[in-house]
Formats: sequence, structure tokens, C-alpha cells
Amino acid sequence: MGDQFSIPATDAIPALRWEEPPEGPVLVLLDQTRLPAEEVELVCTDVQALVRAIRDLAVRGAPLLGIAGAYGVALAAARGYDVDEAADLLAAARPTAVNLAYGVRRAVDVYRAALPEGLDAAAAAVLAEARAVHAEDAAASASMARRGAEVLAELAPGGGYRILTHCNTGALVSGGEGTALAVVLAVHRAGELRRLWVDETRPLLQGARLTAYEAARTGMPYTVLTDNAAGSLFTAGEVDAVLIGADRIAADGSTANKIGSYPLAVLARYHNVPFIVVAPCTTVDLATRDGAAIEVEQRPGHEVTDLGSPLGAQAYNPAFDVTPPELITAIVTERGVVSPVTADALRVMCGPWAE
Amino acid sequence: MGDQFSIPATDAIPALRWEEPPEGPVLVLLDQTRLPAEEVELVCTDVQALVRAIRDLAVRGAPLLGIAGAYGVALAAARGYDVDEAADLLAAARPTAVNLAYGVRRAVDVYRAALPEGLDAAAAAVLAEARAVHAEDAAASASMARRGAEVLAELAPGGGYRILTHCNTGALVSGGEGTALAVVLAVHRAGELRRLWVDETRPLLQGARLTAYEAARTGMPYTVLTDNAAGSLFTAGEVDAVLIGADRIAADGSTANKIGSYPLAVLARYHNVPFIVVAPCTTVDLATRDGAAIEVEQRPGHEVTDLGSPLGAQAYNPAFDVTPPELITAIVTERGVVSPVTADALRVMCGPWAE
Repeated sequence: MGDQFSIPATDAIPALRWEEPPEGPVLVLLDQTRLPAEEVELVCTDVQALVRAIRDLAVRGAPLLGIAGAYGVALAAARGYDVDEAADLLAAARPTAVNLAYGVRRAVDVYRAALPEGLDAAAAAVLAEARAVHAEDAAASASMARRGAEVLAELAPGGGYRILTHCNTGALVSGGEGTALAVVLAVHRAGELRRLWVDETRPLLQGARLTAYEAARTGMPYTVLTDNAAGSLFTAGEVDAVLIGADRIAADGSTANKIGSYPLAVLARYHNVPFIVVAPCTTVDLATRDGAAIEVEQRPGHEVTDLGSPLGAQAYNPAFDVTPPELITAIVTERGVVSPVTADALRVMCGPWAE
Repeated sequence: MGDQFSIPATDAIPALRWEEPPEGPVLVLLDQTRLPAEEVELVCTDVQALVRAIRDLAVRGAPLLGIAGAYGVALAAARGYDVDEAADLLAAARPTAVNLAYGVRRAVDVYRAALPEGLDAAAAAVLAEARAVHAEDAAASASMARRGAEVLAELAPGGGYRILTHCNTGALVSGGEGTALAVVLAVHRAGELRRLWVDETRPLLQGARLTAYEAARTGMPYTVLTDNAAGSLFTAGEVDAVLIGADRIAADGSTANKIGSYPLAVLARYHNVPFIVVAPCTTVDLATRDGAAIEVEQRPGHEVTDLGSPLGAQAYNPAFDVTPPELITAIVTERGVVSPVTADALRVMCGPWAE
């Protein structure tokens, strides 16, 4: 944080990749805590390093956490570490995004099934599974982008959209172009994006840093605002739709997403503006009955008080809030769209993934 | 900003005072941009320095701006500068708070009336008037504190209050103990404050820095949060009332206050929590018909983008938003309380000040 940096308008660089140098396989992460100031890569040779990167938010975003979890299990297998222990560590690294546990579980299941064929075969199988999780997420991203743009045209006809978003939901959180930001990018490519309003997203500024970085790279017209300024955009009639991602969607459609999402949902309802959640079915957790059952991560207070509060100041710093289904106009996944949001429609759409 | 600093729990120090050293009279301001890290005073020997301090928010807050405006005219008169030019400069330093223009106008009117008695007599008269503005604000503050505590007990009976506030409205903005924060302090002294929730108030962090500083000094139990975290406090049932100040209240009760106030009003309404505005009648401007007629100051974008946005990022940075009367449960002034908020009740309460 601090100074500003010039961003070349080029394609996004991958948030995560698997490499196999002579010293042994590694997982290479773009360190998202240093963006946009520096493009620095973290090279993880073991699961401990990956867990630390997940906790520090060097790698973050629900879909990407699923991919990272699967590759983490593959890394443990390839390097001969205890795969079960690695899986437990990874699944517990952060509590809210269900994708992380999902990616880990898929990898572990494949590993166990392949074990009778030997350790090498099991390691190869789990790596193939991680690559499949990665590729499926990229395909899901493309599907969500297409469906999301269609929904937007239905809910807010007229084109020339002014879209408000929160946190970061683009290529940095995905095997593809992301969730909500992938929709915005599709709208932009169709020449229909008038303005992307970017909530800065305190305390960790994923909007001001990461969404602005992706918007600059892809040439979108964008404007950063403090999270508390969204209200006056609504009163000025400057928001045609709110598009956000999700960290976990419960069976009833309650959506946990970055802290500050819920106030936007209340504002959107008050101003009769569509509030659209974009997330892959891997984010839907039918085993979590409703919003009250979603565990919300509490993060260290210094993330809030570091900007000059008095010594000893206490802070309230939940990483997420929960938006109830009645405030969500539509949930867009790679498999379809539910609107209005009901438990039945959600189960029909995402059931095989999420049960 | 940056490091944290220990704050002794003592009485607040004055935000502004008039001194007369041998070199000539000066206006001494506590530089609020440096709090809580350092208690540094700015010594203004001319109106240009005071205007700069107002624009830079070294001195800020609607009631205090009225006092500073009056003393500024007194300073010009005492030092033999052009009083009319000084008054124009001061009144135009910031556009939204009506108190600034009010304080300047009161001082100038007295100056002109006393001019026939000579320059020295006029200078003495205008200084006396500035002191009167100062003393009246202190008295108004005490009255608002008492009335606000009574209103709170009526609207949210039960005591043991959890109060959410935004920006800074204490001794730092007043000749006394402030507006909304003076009410909170009265509640605290009565042993009825369970928790003060302090919105950090981006971009300039008047909550995280200044309200936290005043809360620490006065021994209140307080917790800082990012502005976007207020929503999850409401859903958790952790807010009994929202108390804020005002920068300008239009004739219909529409209230301009620090950016982020309006979203709190919408959240409070959605959760059926009282939303209470506390401000002296000098903040009520019956000449401004409604919210649409309030000029909202747009501040430099770098205040938003300085926390690590890409170079060239545009920012939307209004200093205030406007809350319509239908979302305000009560307006508390030194003269009384209006609830529900109507133009008629407001005019009856504050008419003689504001017409």
C-alpha cells in the first residue's frame, strides 16, 4: 500500500500455476497482497507454505481457493508428504469458502482411490484431478459470464450499464476470468459497460487494489469509491445493477460474501436496483441449511486499526457478512440462473455438485 | 496515519482558542489531521492560514467551523486586514456546513454595526461576538447532550445502550462537548453505555482517529469497525440506536452529513433501529429548501486512491451524503426535538436562528 503504480493494459497473468522444475514440483502463486504495486510470485514447495499464503490472502477468492486446495493435495502427494495431514491443514486454513474444502476433498478422494496402484500412480491421479478442477473452473467462469450478461440484459434492459461491484471477483480468483467480474468483462467486450463502480473494500482493499488492477489491465472504464460512498451513487441514480461473487451460498440461498455486501443488498432493495450474485455451483453448500449456519471468519483487529487508531483500540473485523435470499434478485452459476432465489430452485440447479 | 499511539484518559483539550501574545492576536488550532498520533497546534496569524486549515480539515466539524469563522473575522479586524475580503474568503473555504457562513456573517454584522465607533471598538466588538458564538455553542452542546439522552431513553428504552456513530462529533467539533458524541458521553456518564461502535469513516478516518481518540480520553467502551461492517452489526442485533451529527439540515429536514451516513439510515430503517441526528440550530438552513438544494463538496480523488490503487485510477469522493427526513427518527437540537421530522416542526424549533 502507499504509492500508486502504472498498470499496463495487457491480459491478466495467472493467479496460480503448477510447475515441475528439476528440484521437484511446486505451486507458483501470484502474491495478491503485493498487487498492484508489484507482481511478485510465491513458490510453494510444501503445504505449510500454501496454508500460510491462504491465511495471509496472498491467494484468495472462493473458486481459486478450491483450485489451490486440490493442487495443495497434489503437491503433498508428489513430494511424498502425509496426504491426509496435508488435506486437513488445507481444509482448515480458512473457514468460510466452501470451495476450499470441496477442492481438497475431490483431490483426496481421487488419491485414495488410486493408492492401490502405488504412490506414483496416486500422485499422478491427484495432479490430474487438480488440473481438472482448474479447467472446470475456467469453463464455469465462461459460462457464468455468458449467463450473467443475459440476466443483466433481462433485469436492467437498455444497455450502457453502470455496475457496482465489491471486493475482487475476476481472473485473480479463478481458473478463468472469474465470477461477477467475468460478467462485467463480457459486458465491457460487448461495448455495453458505461462505468464500473469499484468499492475499495476495506480493510484489505481488494477493490481499490485488485479489481482496479484487473479493470485497468482490461481497459474497463472504472471509478474507485470508499465503501460508504455507494449510498450516494444510488440516490443519484448512478447504479443500474450490483454484481458480486460469493464465498458460500447456503441451501436457502443465503450468501456469505466479503464484508460490506449486505449493506449493498439493502441499498439495492431500497432503490429497486437488481442485486445479482455470480458464483459457481462449487460455492453452493446444500449441507449448510441457512445463513445462520454459515461460519464467518473473524480476522485480526489490526487490519482495521492500523490506519491510525489509538493504541489499545478494539476492532470488530468479520471477513464476511450474509445476505438473505429475499434481498438477492438472482444467483447466476455455470449451470443456470435462479430468480427469485428459492431453496428448491437452487437444489435443482446445483444439486449434483453440492450434495 | 500508520502507527498506533497511546492516549492518556484525561479531559479533551480545546480544539481552538484565541490568544493575545505581544506580537499580536492569534487563533490557535489543534491540528486534527495529526491526531491521535500527535497533539500539534497550528498558530494562525492571518485569515489565509485559517482558510488553509479549514480546507485541509485541520479544523473541521460544523459547529466548530462556525466558531472558527467568527474568530477569523475577529482576527482580520484585530490585525487591521480587510474584513470584508477576509469574510468572503472564510465563508467560501468549504461549501457544505452552513455554520461556517453563519459564524462569519454574525461577526461581520457586528463589525459593521460597530465601525462608526472606530476600528479598535469594532475589533473589540467582533471579538466579543466570536466569544459569544463560542460560548453559545458550548451551552448548546450541553443542552443537546441532555435532550439527546432523554430521546434515546424514549426511543430505545432499557438502557445499556449499544450506539453506532459515524465520523467525529465530540469536543473536537465544538465549543463544548459536541453534538452526537456529547449525547453518547452523557449516556456513558450515566453508566448506560454498553458499547460505542465507531465507524472508521473513510477516506479521512475521522472515526478511527478522532472519535476513537475522544472515546479513549473519556474512558468509553468503544470498538472501531470498517464502515462496511455496520450491516453485520445490525443483522446481529448489536445496535440499539444510530447517533450522528449534521453538516447542513435543509428546511424539510434533509440532512447532509459525512459520506456514509445515508447507508446507515437505510440500514437502520430496514432493521427498525432509531436513527437520530444531533445538531445545533445553527446547522439548520431554512433557506435551503430540500436535500437536492444542498451543495455537496467533492474532494480530491487521491484521498481515496492513496491506499494502493493503480496509477490513473479515477475516484468518486463526495464529502457528504444527504439523508431524507423520512429516514430520520428524530432531530435533536439545543432548543428541542422534532420526531417525526417535518418542515413545520423544524421551522418552529429553529426559526429565529435560521431565517
